[in-house]
Amino acid sequence: MSKKKIVLIGATGTIGQGVAARLSERYEIVTVGARSGQHQADIADIRQVEALFDRIGKVDAVVVTAGALHFGPLAEITPQQFRIGLDSKLMGQVNVAQVAQRFLNDGGSITLTSGVLADSPIRYGAAATMTNAAVEAYVRGAAIELPRGLRINVVSPALLDESVEAYGDYFRGWETVPAKRVALAYERSVEGAQSGQVYKVV
Amino acid sequence: MSKKKIVLIGATGTIGQGVAARLSERYEIVTVGARSGQHQADIADIRQVEALFDRIGKVDAVVVTAGALHFGPLAEITPQQFRIGLDSKLMGQVNVAQVAQRFLNDGGSITLTSGVLADSPIRYGAAATMTNAAVEAYVRGAAIELPRGLRINVVSPALLDESVEAYGDYFRGWETVPAKRVALAYERSVEGAQSGQVYKVV
Repeated sequence: MSKKKIVLIGATGTIGQGVAARLSERYEIVTVGARSGQHQADIADIRQVEALFDRIGKVDAVVVTAGALHFGPLAEITPQQFRIGLDSKLMGQVNVAQVAQRFLNDGGSITLTSGVLADSPIRYGAAATMTNAAVEAYVRGAAIELPRGLRINVVSPALLDESVEAYGDYFRGWETVPAKRVALAYERSVEGAQSGQVYKVV
Repeated sequence: MSKKKIVLIGATGTIGQGVAARLSERYEIVTVGARSGQHQADIADIRQVEALFDRIGKVDAVVVTAGALHFGPLAEITPQQFRIGLDSKLMGQVNVAQVAQRFLNDGGSITLTSGVLADSPIRYGAAATMTNAAVEAYVRGAAIELPRGLRINVVSPALLDESVEAYGDYFRGWETVPAKRVALAYERSVEGAQSGQVYKVV
């Protein structure tokens, strides 16, 4: 029996690398990035997502570990800066989930990525809190309408150990988590039987 | 002492009318609508929101009871249809909250509107769940950064008694609430001392 196929979008990011390391022994991983991986696609553009899946064909699981967010003082966040997260981390992942529904084999799964700020706001984090919570809510809403035993979940990680240098100033006093632990939650989503769940790794 | 001034955006909607009836005795209400009220503005366009507040000047509270949402089968929701809620109910309200920060007197309040679907998905409601949860998350994020004792809350109503004819088919088996009860929650937000709260009326 051939290995099941997972599309991993954001494969070269810190989380994506952890997920690839965790799942590559038991799955065939198709890596996708904005500018790297086996396939390239800007997931903010649904036509690129459709072209991507047309090339890849049927799959058993889709994991997205991609999406940009803006951080900045509340009073200074412009509509364009709110849009960064809405276009990329929210609608980018929603585009993938919407298109993936047509390419997943029966019983397949979609796993998206939010983040701990969805629940717990920080200074300069209003756009991130808004975007991450919206991703989780999309998953909550989509889970009950998916056909053919398809499932959808979302992993909500705390700040990664590996990202402390870049974002640690925003998260003073917060516990951080290694990408290796975060990768477990994606495996749990892909191999488990639940749907509509938020798997928090904090 | 003159009455405190509330800007009510969405004043002629079902909830807006309830809020106006509830608060007009004790407040000066400035009514705003897309095509009705004392002032007109499309809140999806932040320049129109800025022009609106430039005309109105300083206020003590801002209440938004406006915003469109798309309902439809998950597999058929297009990015453009997800954008209806993101542009209108989410970014429209966010635009108002962002601009209002500069026009509110010390200790003033902002009250936005989400909806029960934020927590509890229904068939055909994925875009609504996503949008409403994002509004609540923006409020959660913004509350901790507001200066000068400003507060922000959000009212999350169940389906209105008055909206059963239009939306009742989506909400079979759900309890509905009268706009008059929902209006109380806006009063609680405007006159209370809390911030970052979701006032559920179910």
